[in-house]
Amino acid sequence: MHQEQGRVRPGATVGEVGERALIALFTAAAAGSSDDVVIGSGDDAAVLAGGGAVVVSTDTAVAGRHFRFDWSTAEQIGARAVVQSAADIAAMGGTLTGTVVSIGCPPETPVPRVLALNAGIVAQTHRLGGRVLGGDLVSAPSVILTVTSLGTLSGTAPVTLAGARAGDVLAVSGPLGGAAAGLAVLSAIENGADPVLAARFPQLVQAYRLPQPDLAQGPIAARAGAHAMTDISDALVEEIITMSAGSGLHLDVESAMVPRPAGLDELAAELGVDPVRWALTGGEDHQLLAAFAPGGVPGGWTVVGTVAAPAAGRPAAATVDGATADGLHGWQSFSEA
Amino acid sequence: MHQEQGRVRPGATVGEVGERALIALFTAAAAGSSDDVVIGSGDDAAVLAGGGAVVVSTDTAVAGRHFRFDWSTAEQIGARAVVQSAADIAAMGGTLTGTVVSIGCPPETPVPRVLALNAGIVAQTHRLGGRVLGGDLVSAPSVILTVTSLGTLSGTAPVTLAGARAGDVLAVSGPLGGAAAGLAVLSAIENGADPVLAARFPQLVQAYRLPQPDLAQGPIAARAGAHAMTDISDALVEEIITMSAGSGLHLDVESAMVPRPAGLDELAAELGVDPVRWALTGGEDHQLLAAFAPGGVPGGWTVVGTVAAPAAGRPAAATVDGATADGLHGWQSFSEA
Repeated sequence: MHQEQGRVRPGATVGEVGERALIALFTAAAAGSSDDVVIGSGDDAAVLAGGGAVVVSTDTAVAGRHFRFDWSTAEQIGARAVVQSAADIAAMGGTLTGTVVSIGCPPETPVPRVLALNAGIVAQTHRLGGRVLGGDLVSAPSVILTVTSLGTLSGTAPVTLAGARAGDVLAVSGPLGGAAAGLAVLSAIENGADPVLAARFPQLVQAYRLPQPDLAQGPIAARAGAHAMTDISDALVEEIITMSAGSGLHLDVESAMVPRPAGLDELAAELGVDPVRWALTGGEDHQLLAAFAPGGVPGGWTVVGTVAAPAAGRPAAATVDGATADGLHGWQSFSEA
Repeated sequence: MHQEQGRVRPGATVGEVGERALIALFTAAAAGSSDDVVIGSGDDAAVLAGGGAVVVSTDTAVAGRHFRFDWSTAEQIGARAVVQSAADIAAMGGTLTGTVVSIGCPPETPVPRVLALNAGIVAQTHRLGGRVLGGDLVSAPSVILTVTSLGTLSGTAPVTLAGARAGDVLAVSGPLGGAAAGLAVLSAIENGADPVLAARFPQLVQAYRLPQPDLAQGPIAARAGAHAMTDISDALVEEIITMSAGSGLHLDVESAMVPRPAGLDELAAELGVDPVRWALTGGEDHQLLAAFAPGGVPGGWTVVGTVAAPAAGRPAAATVDGATADGLHGWQSFSEA
């Protein structure tokens, strides 16, 4: 402990430098300029000035399971953890105010890797208009990041998962399947495909490494009167199953209407897979899915389906092109990879 | 997925039951009755009604490093993670309103273990007056808990680490060293001591397994005008080093004044160790340390030292009985165990 800031020997590990010296470096990196924060990183806890309702959500990402250091830079991994957590704030109609971060890593982790993870967290938090409020650094068997996001609602009611109404349309805030396609590129190369594949589809690889959904669409949708909203973290089919269960209504997505990013169909043809399946079952794009009254869909959103009362005597269901979505599986943390 | 709640086969693992079924069980377990929470666990994010300033802090505990399942029950481990995080809220003068929890565990983890961890988290959050607001469950190489606590300040200014003033007295909210002593009991038994030792010092073993500091003393100290405050998570000596660095003042603790729990001296004599060292360098008691103007110490607190301007030409220092505290080391996540 008590090492001075800024004097970390090149090649030093986290275990050699120690928790306190690293947290001091993190605190220096987190210094931002938001007026919301009364006490920032470095004290026992952060304090935000009072105001409207507070929105909070947490997400954890684990090395080898949710990210790989040979597939993404440490900055991208840190930034993506923030996007994943902040997307949940947007999905309530909220705007990010700050993040609280826990980094677990083995003592033999090189210090530059931890500093780069933190730099990605700080940069992405700032890009989304928030500030890193504090954190914890612990010894763990592998690198594990937990980002807790705080946000504000700015006058709108929270938009829940369950509020869809019969007659609504379903819409998404951006193209889907890009992260799954980018992951497929990296997997294909690992399995012997020509590495030039990554250079030919850089935007898809980037969609996997650091999805950049427009999270400002969350508050926009809330102000437009969205009845229900979530971010698409697991897969579009998983989210409509959840929204159907929450509302007791029948949600149907028309697969051809789901927007797909540029290059996705070309890559799918090359790899011999169904591009629509990527868009329906690929996770981690973190675009938003919302139910709006017809005519109430904000600009920039794409209608992909409908909400209806279930047929008489039938349970509420989620369907794709009229057929059950239950056979289509998206991402689950404990499913087989 | 889509397993029904309450139908978990005895002996089922987390990997078999799946993330969604478990989160549904967690959501059911978290149902409380706080009026603060607008949307609770189970949606993308939780929403708390607006009010005063928001205090936030996060803490992570890792199996094998911060706890062992053969030394504590899963309920105790979950509850202790909440105490550790909530103590940081109290240390700002705040009162806990809610917790957000991330649980990482291997797929082969038995479901009852995860449910018991969660039950401990929920029970302790409720005991401290808060509510579990949400969480995440992920696959990880070992069990890892991250608890983020939110709190309110109720009209007092946040009490920082750095605010001590020359002439202040230092005081602690309860006895120290109990958690270190309890850990020593369990370690001694593992190394061949008679297991009856644990039965002879149950309150010390309990202090390790689930410290129960009176966190209401945080707001009480804030209302009494405390100038600086922190919770004693690493060790009293570590905290005075931090407070001295933050304030630029000389903090001295008189070791004989540091309150020790019942049984500690007897156990120390039996194990041939210095009880004062446990009180000074033992971590994880989570009592509060604060600097007050003389005469401003609330009832229930014990004065243990003083704050003074550093001698002319000398840097600020933290001392115990007038000698430097730098040679005494407390808990650090990356130090050798």
